Amino acid sequence: MHSLRLKAHEERRLRAGHLWAYSNEIDTAVTPLKGLKPGTLCRLEDARGKALGVGYVHPNVLLSVRLLSGQADALIDREWFERRLRQALSLRERLYPSPHYRLVFGESDGLPGLVIDRYGDLLSVQLTTAGMEALKEPLLEALQRLLKPKGILFRNDNAMRQTEGLPSEDEVWGEVPEEVELLESGVRLLAPLRAGQKTGFFYDQHANRDRVLPYVRGARVLDVFSYVGGWAARAAAAGATSVACIDSSELALDYAARNMAAQGAAPETLRGDALDLIKQLRAEGRQFDVVVVDPPALIKRKKDEEAGQAHYAALNRAAMHLLAADGILVSCSCSHHLSEEQLQRILLRESRQAGRRLQILERGGQGPDHPVHPAIPETLYLKAFYCRATVG
Amino acid sequence: MHSLRLKAHEERRLRAGHLWAYSNEIDTAVTPLKGLKPGTLCRLEDARGKALGVGYVHPNVLLSVRLLSGQADALIDREWFERRLRQALSLRERLYPSPHYRLVFGESDGLPGLVIDRYGDLLSVQLTTAGMEALKEPLLEALQRLLKPKGILFRNDNAMRQTEGLPSEDEVWGEVPEEVELLESGVRLLAPLRAGQKTGFFYDQHANRDRVLPYVRGARVLDVFSYVGGWAARAAAAGATSVACIDSSELALDYAARNMAAQGAAPETLRGDALDLIKQLRAEGRQFDVVVVDPPALIKRKKDEEAGQAHYAALNRAAMHLLAADGILVSCSCSHHLSEEQLQRILLRESRQAGRRLQILERGGQGPDHPVHPAIPETLYLKAFYCRATVG
Repeated sequence: MHSLRLKAHEERRLRAGHLWAYSNEIDTAVTPLKGLKPGTLCRLEDARGKALGVGYVHPNVLLSVRLLSGQADALIDREWFERRLRQALSLRERLYPSPHYRLVFGESDGLPGLVIDRYGDLLSVQLTTAGMEALKEPLLEALQRLLKPKGILFRNDNAMRQTEGLPSEDEVWGEVPEEVELLESGVRLLAPLRAGQKTGFFYDQHANRDRVLPYVRGARVLDVFSYVGGWAARAAAAGATSVACIDSSELALDYAARNMAAQGAAPETLRGDALDLIKQLRAEGRQFDVVVVDPPALIKRKKDEEAGQAHYAALNRAAMHLLAADGILVSCSCSHHLSEEQLQRILLRESRQAGRRLQILERGGQGPDHPVHPAIPETLYLKAFYCRATVG
Repeated sequence: MHSLRLKAHEERRLRAGHLWAYSNEIDTAVTPLKGLKPGTLCRLEDARGKALGVGYVHPNVLLSVRLLSGQADALIDREWFERRLRQALSLRERLYPSPHYRLVFGESDGLPGLVIDRYGDLLSVQLTTAGMEALKEPLLEALQRLLKPKGILFRNDNAMRQTEGLPSEDEVWGEVPEEVELLESGVRLLAPLRAGQKTGFFYDQHANRDRVLPYVRGARVLDVFSYVGGWAARAAAAGATSVACIDSSELALDYAARNMAAQGAAPETLRGDALDLIKQLRAEGRQFDVVVVDPPALIKRKKDEEAGQAHYAALNRAAMHLLAADGILVSCSCSHHLSEEQLQRILLRESRQAGRRLQILERGGQGPDHPVHPAIPETLYLKAFYCRATVG
């Protein structure tokens, strides 16, 4: 196996548990990156030649090595994948009564570059690196032995794959339908597997949607950036008196309407720009007891920070104006570049502007099927605040 | 009403929503603090004489003013207390099926200096400031009208009262028994109201104990710093195969044994120093599938930081050594002076020492009956990490 050597002192982050090495940390005079095929397995060593483990390499990107194993002689084969997948599966099987969850969350499950969402016997897979793409065969074999899936959809249309120089057309293994059905805490939901966003559904908010249930009983609920209406459908099932969804996508709102109606609710959907629609509802004198603001990442890169923060502020302020006295705002952000503290600061400031006293009742993150790797801050991305905005 | 004027620019924190003014921020040349009776109600103004609201004052402590209302002409009487208490009550009644919760959490409920835990028709009350002590009469009247309690225990043995120069003997109104019974998510628990710690029970971990249930089914569970065995009893009720408690207090362990036994478990209790006992269990070859480390605040003051962090580290490392493969560690801290990031860093480092790969599955804070005031960082104190410590 090929070896790559780090420059002096560059092993510290990895010794502390991190899995990444950047190209500028590698002693390319001794062990050149140039000429290596993207995805090649290699042994990573510190400057003294002491092995740190086995990973895969990409010679042309900044994040050039991701460790798969801390063992110097690790064999990355079908059996290795089976062990890692079994470890991931045992956690999810303990936590979820039905097979609908994120089965693998990349680095956090010891499988860098791999994301798998499970919809029963269908899998939606993202291979985001050339290294994981090169290991597709043993991965597929391991998945077949472990789960016997009927179909696997490889969702290849993501930015990371482009950076790694990988094709972006989706691929299908076995049979994969357009639409999937899933159970979330006993509530049946439909999602567009092939035409939908990301892997088809946002399992990361499952636990946060559970958490909102006590607040929605007998309440008027608005779900902003609803996608397929997960929050609204769960609220309807939990006894909300009315549910409404805002989204810009017609496909998403079609699904949202079906998901709400399946829970016996009269589905209200509003299509267009979220901020415009919230303001329009206010102009019409509408009020809600619970408003969920769950936008896509509004800060994708560090340089979008200022504009993104202003966008979060405007959305949350507008949402507060829709709240009845002592109403509940659930404010989410999946931007890694917006910290929990920053979001809290925005909420405080906008509540003062809106003339409300804010109480933060609960904080949520991504669910336990999206574990956080404590050495890799990037694996923590989802924040949710449950706030009561009191008057007087 | 007496007025107190702030120095120039010192109103900013209060305008942002904070409720405190420090003695060095007050323009004592214009409005002296000296001579004011502790607890006097006063109107707080900015340097230009614009009112910020009404609060109470203590002339001899650093934190000299706490605002009760943002209205310049607020009348702090029985009706005012009724409004604030009703607002606090409506939240708890929505969230909890039985009347067992923290009813008032000080500043976060707009009632600085007041903490009330409710055990059905018994209340355990902490009046931590001279200002709130001076308002005891309208508070009591409001509580009687709203809740008609049978008994109220004033727990006066806390450090804050000493700073404020208040007596530390407990007081009783009506009838207050030694022991209370409460329901937590349907599980009956007993706690020593009069002789126990703080207000008798730790409601702040209720939601965190709910969160541990999926992990404890069929598991061997150890509850370190158990107090009355809340975690262990809940685990027993949720199907743990064995439960054990460690605590230094005989009284606490007596209650823990009763609480575990009531759930059909064979109660194991170990009395003594937690770290010593964990190490002893390891020496005996004992293993657990779930270990909860829920110590009292090990960092009470900023100056205890280093020793406290070392103590957290030692406890968590020792606990990790007791975990079976892929076991779950629930690690808590109620030290305001230990941030979530710091605790996470400790857990990562100690997991490396213990040869484990750590996954952070969930993060918890204090429950929604202990709201966080977004402008007052001190109101956020409880942290809980749910980690899986995998091997290989």
